[in-house]
Amino acid sequence: MTTQSEQDHRPVIVQKYGGSSLADPEMIHKVASRIIAKSEEGVDVVVVVSAMGDSTDELHALSKAVTKGATPDPREMDTLLSTGELVTSTLMAMALKARGHDAVSLSGPQAGIKTDAVHGSARIADIKTDRLRRELDKGRIVIVAGFQGLAESGDITTLGRGASDTTAVALAVATKAERCEIYTDVEGIYTTDPRLTDKARKLAEIGFQEMLEMAVLGAKMNPRSIELGLVYDMPIYVASSFSNETGTLIHGGEHTMEVRKVVTGIAVDRNVGKITVRGVIDRPGIAAGLLQPLADAGVSVDVIVQNTSSDGTTDFTFTTALASVEKAAEVIESDSTVEYAEVVTGSNLAKVSVVGTGMENAPGYAAKMFSTLSEVDVNIDMITTSEIRITTIIERDQVQKAVQALHDAFELEKTE
Amino acid sequence: MTTQSEQDHRPVIVQKYGGSSLADPEMIHKVASRIIAKSEEGVDVVVVVSAMGDSTDELHALSKAVTKGATPDPREMDTLLSTGELVTSTLMAMALKARGHDAVSLSGPQAGIKTDAVHGSARIADIKTDRLRRELDKGRIVIVAGFQGLAESGDITTLGRGASDTTAVALAVATKAERCEIYTDVEGIYTTDPRLTDKARKLAEIGFQEMLEMAVLGAKMNPRSIELGLVYDMPIYVASSFSNETGTLIHGGEHTMEVRKVVTGIAVDRNVGKITVRGVIDRPGIAAGLLQPLADAGVSVDVIVQNTSSDGTTDFTFTTALASVEKAAEVIESDSTVEYAEVVTGSNLAKVSVVGTGMENAPGYAAKMFSTLSEVDVNIDMITTSEIRITTIIERDQVQKAVQALHDAFELEKTE
Repeated sequence: MTTQSEQDHRPVIVQKYGGSSLADPEMIHKVASRIIAKSEEGVDVVVVVSAMGDSTDELHALSKAVTKGATPDPREMDTLLSTGELVTSTLMAMALKARGHDAVSLSGPQAGIKTDAVHGSARIADIKTDRLRRELDKGRIVIVAGFQGLAESGDITTLGRGASDTTAVALAVATKAERCEIYTDVEGIYTTDPRLTDKARKLAEIGFQEMLEMAVLGAKMNPRSIELGLVYDMPIYVASSFSNETGTLIHGGEHTMEVRKVVTGIAVDRNVGKITVRGVIDRPGIAAGLLQPLADAGVSVDVIVQNTSSDGTTDFTFTTALASVEKAAEVIESDSTVEYAEVVTGSNLAKVSVVGTGMENAPGYAAKMFSTLSEVDVNIDMITTSEIRITTIIERDQVQKAVQALHDAFELEKTE
Repeated sequence: MTTQSEQDHRPVIVQKYGGSSLADPEMIHKVASRIIAKSEEGVDVVVVVSAMGDSTDELHALSKAVTKGATPDPREMDTLLSTGELVTSTLMAMALKARGHDAVSLSGPQAGIKTDAVHGSARIADIKTDRLRRELDKGRIVIVAGFQGLAESGDITTLGRGASDTTAVALAVATKAERCEIYTDVEGIYTTDPRLTDKARKLAEIGFQEMLEMAVLGAKMNPRSIELGLVYDMPIYVASSFSNETGTLIHGGEHTMEVRKVVTGIAVDRNVGKITVRGVIDRPGIAAGLLQPLADAGVSVDVIVQNTSSDGTTDFTFTTALASVEKAAEVIESDSTVEYAEVVTGSNLAKVSVVGTGMENAPGYAAKMFSTLSEVDVNIDMITTSEIRITTIIERDQVQKAVQALHDAFELEKTE
């Protein structure tokens, strides 16, 4: 494409609607009305859709029934799952056309989304926008089936659970869109989970780095989509599919004109399991001897703590996703190359993190966090920090108390 | 492909299984067992599958709900409907792999099926078998999603209702298969509908021409697949998915060694509506003036009869599919360029045809048919003939009586 022809294009907006906003024909029509309203603003609209409601779960159930419990072939699974988004994208295009607006659906492959060949969690390698651009230039609203792409082999791939967000941001980057709008069943990004404290406040904006920490730490956004936004500086607007309330704009910090607080939000992840390997004979290579077999078995390890004791042994503790605890213990018992006394598992934990870009240059935030938790009798099990967050592992039934105290202490209910 | 490499290939068998044989995971497993048995005979197996049970109807219902009764965009409809066959083909490949047999699913486009761009009833233009051949050469069972192909535009097309049979025969031709096997919920082709007379006999074989008449006239086979078989001389074997009973081989007449009867079978179509336009002023161009508006409105006309009367007017009668009767009457009342007295519709009719390649050279079969019907008091409303069939339109509630009498008169219960 030449610069000349690019200048002729209208501004592009990419919107993404999740499956819970598209669960039945009536909801599809409500979303169609929102798409039409955006299109009538005189912009080119590209819409990315997820599969309807729980149709992806139904396809998973079918595949399990057919393989009688064995793991279904991942290449076949990807083509099977890709049908869910094809159904929504074609229904949406039909709904728009039936209401007199020109529209066309494109599958991931038709939208030019090229990926690597890792079935089940493929990465986008490139997007060839020729066809998409041609459809926009005809004045059409383009509906793209999210979550899917095409490997060089000609096989369908999927990008992993929740990756329609990634499709949307990647298409926004490839089409040089003004911004990517993610419409979902929440009204935006909050200082913390509103179910934990009624003081939780919706953020008008948040930086990519902070949002990335919030997403990884439990906020309901796909971290890969935030990473993409960060790398290509593509603003991402998160808002509700059901209301017209203003949502949250995720963007590069340099755009921020106002003075920002150092703490932006509190992220909570209740999906935490803990494994402690007690009485490990303290020799070089312990960590590798324990962690390599886990990596080989595909178990992701999160927070790691190692305490040396005086008797020549050590306790090695780490956290994993709750669902991986049993497997992690089994792998260590069967495959680790380390001598130890016993393996103890814990499953009543949660992760509470204070996130904010200001913290790296402002001392005292960790101390404030720990003293606040101490004042409300919340015991801290493990601690880990990065430049822009402080994470504590605490007991799960103390999460609400902890979040409410931290939200007050860092004055998150006040607007910036 | 060189002749050398072709000689290295194992024989290819194409099998097709219909949706009623694949309605749930358990049935998919039973069909998988049949596929495995065939594969273990040492042949390359290509399997064409339809959508599971009534899933196509469910997708139609969704599209209607979304367009609120308006006709859904045909291009979107094709991609939507194509997902049904993708689901079955991937589930079948998973089932085979889970049981230790290497298998791969291919969508219509992946199987190289190129079509014209007529959405909803596309015709196969060409089949590029490179990918399919590569998969077979790896020792894999290849499962192809039926009913679908790819237009030059890169859009998905569908071949029309019941056209997975067409996919199967076309793939058999393209892969130079030994034969195409269609497995369905009947045990083969019968001399007539077994529900009408217990003397109905399953045919061991039937010629393409005769089968084509039987198919067009109501037998449960897709006529386009028979046409393909005829043109490319590809034998088609029709049998039950549920039993191991011998089915019927449809093939070119020249292969038949034995002496054949002149009458092969009796076809019945209960889906017949009749429109009579009374008191038409008899001028040149009546037929065109009545039929052109029907063609423009997409109404197919079947049997046509015109009686001239002495008063300068004529009655013009034709049949259509039952579902088109009301529309046909409306079109004539609003758009025909002919003067007439009244339009009368009839919907209690059926079509009974005697089919057999021998008839064209053997006189007296029409007379025998009419006298047989007369003996059992069946009134003939309309008559039409071709070289290899005699068709009568009679009242629907006389079908059983007519078929039993004709089956006896032409001695169809006796083997050839």
